[in-house]
Amino acid sequence: MELRFVDFLEFIGTFAFAISGIRLASAKHFDWFGAYVVGFATAVGGGTIRDLLLGVTPFWMHSSSYLIFTAIAFFFVVLFRKALVRLDDTFFYFDTIGLGLFVVVGCNKTLQMDAHYAYWVVVIMGMLTGAAGGVLRDILINEVPLIFRKEIYALACLFGGTVFCICDAMGVATVLAQIISAVSVVIIRLLAVKYHLCLPVLKRE
Amino acid sequence: MELRFVDFLEFIGTFAFAISGIRLASAKHFDWFGAYVVGFATAVGGGTIRDLLLGVTPFWMHSSSYLIFTAIAFFFVVLFRKALVRLDDTFFYFDTIGLGLFVVVGCNKTLQMDAHYAYWVVVIMGMLTGAAGGVLRDILINEVPLIFRKEIYALACLFGGTVFCICDAMGVATVLAQIISAVSVVIIRLLAVKYHLCLPVLKRE
Amino acid sequence: MELRFVDFLEFIGTFAFAISGIRLASAKHFDWFGAYVVGFATAVGGGTIRDLLLGVTPFWMHSSSYLIFTAIAFFFVVLFRKALVRLDDTFFYFDTIGLGLFVVVGCNKTLQMDAHYAYWVVVIMGMLTGAAGGVLRDILINEVPLIFRKEIYALACLFGGTVFCICDAMGVATVLAQIISAVSVVIIRLLAVKYHLCLPVLKRE
Repeated sequence: MELRFVDFLEFIGTFAFAISGIRLASAKHFDWFGAYVVGFATAVGGGTIRDLLLGVTPFWMHSSSYLIFTAIAFFFVVLFRKALVRLDDTFFYFDTIGLGLFVVVGCNKTLQMDAHYAYWVVVIMGMLTGAAGGVLRDILINEVPLIFRKEIYALACLFGGTVFCICDAMGVATVLAQIISAVSVVIIRLLAVKYHLCLPVLKRE
Repeated sequence: MELRFVDFLEFIGTFAFAISGIRLASAKHFDWFGAYVVGFATAVGGGTIRDLLLGVTPFWMHSSSYLIFTAIAFFFVVLFRKALVRLDDTFFYFDTIGLGLFVVVGCNKTLQMDAHYAYWVVVIMGMLTGAAGGVLRDILINEVPLIFRKEIYALACLFGGTVFCICDAMGVATVLAQIISAVSVVIIRLLAVKYHLCLPVLKRE
Repeated sequence: MELRFVDFLEFIGTFAFAISGIRLASAKHFDWFGAYVVGFATAVGGGTIRDLLLGVTPFWMHSSSYLIFTAIAFFFVVLFRKALVRLDDTFFYFDTIGLGLFVVVGCNKTLQMDAHYAYWVVVIMGMLTGAAGGVLRDILINEVPLIFRKEIYALACLFGGTVFCICDAMGVATVLAQIISAVSVVIIRLLAVKYHLCLPVLKRE
């Protein structure tokens, strides 16, 4: 039962990330293939970069479900194009849930590697899992990466990863640590958007 | 004799891919070094991404021939600059032959890995080998990747890869499977260009 | 004592590379997080690409000093923003010293791999270590990579790598080979800037 719930969350996250890639691709007049690829890259790009850095086979090469989730997202955008704007709030929550889950998955995978990485590597891998897919998406559509300019997005990942590592150091049970960590990512992101929190912009010389 | 013919095709493909990178780089006022690098990245980029995902040493680090092929392409562009436009048709055929060959090489390499990847991974690796070099080229020259917006290019790769896997599942001899698969990539691409076939563009919201 | 001097040079190089990334990010209105990430990617990007191609764990995952060096660079830019322009000459020398060091580190690491790479691979890995971080920086800020259009930068890396390999083939002691090679990178770069040497631009068709 627990497994199924995590699988459901993973579907929600992959779906939401793919939707964001497909919608931005459509704004740049990409064809169906291009939109699908950008959606897929947004959904799995962060975990792929993490896995390449960790030296393991990228996770999506073990299971076709990510291709299928992206296909569902693609047909959803094609079919319900006009309704999408009204669903923006829903997508925002899906995206935020996905972010929390991806961070936890990335931290957990890194922590369980034989190489015994330091906690700061665990936090970075969690952040990359959550945030690097969006950077890859923006590179593919030839835009300046959004997370470098707007919103507390990556910082929520860093915070959640740090919470995860503190829980681990304190001996908190893994499942509990994962839940606390994912929820803290979600809370920080919701607070940041509600109160328009953002980082200062570097002043030009 | 067979080996020599494949080597010849590989030269043709690498040469054509490098030419496309060098010409686009020259349109962006790159210097000689930049043009060479973009040509090399176009030629070997797809195979490099495939090899990183498969966890093996990138193929071009085993043989200097790809550096040399790219150098030949570079001097060809420098020397015959004015004649290039008249040769566009020839380059198109070279590029298409290269595409067919690259897809087959990518599929074959993936299928023979110890990890025993699923057929859909084989098809994706074939497509990446054929098409990802062009995406890397477009990122390096800071343009929106062409294959996301125009022409049946990646779909020809997907089709050829699928043909390859069907042949393998049916027990067709490897050499024959490779020929059938490469020829099917070439035919799809030729048909797509002749009849201006392209995928629908995603409508904006 | 020798170790400490190399560590000092590594700090200088990482600091200078990170500064260049942070300053360019600030010119694009990146926030603090984005600027830090671009600085870090500029500093460690070349070595990371090298390590991925060599199939080893990226060097910065073994030591937090690169994160810390980048943080120092970041606060330096934030605090001394107005003074930076006057320090341009100093940064140029730091950057050049870093380039020489990075090339040598990249060549040396590649040469000592069990895989026994050919000398031309060693030279390419040295060049990637020195120059690919700047390419990654320019991709992240969505600009055409600077080194493809201006200055003898990558060529200085290629020259230094070649010097390193010639020294190795002649049996010169490693420490001496490293010093000669790094100094030759610095000299070529200084000469190129002093006499405005640059490569020809490819003429458009």
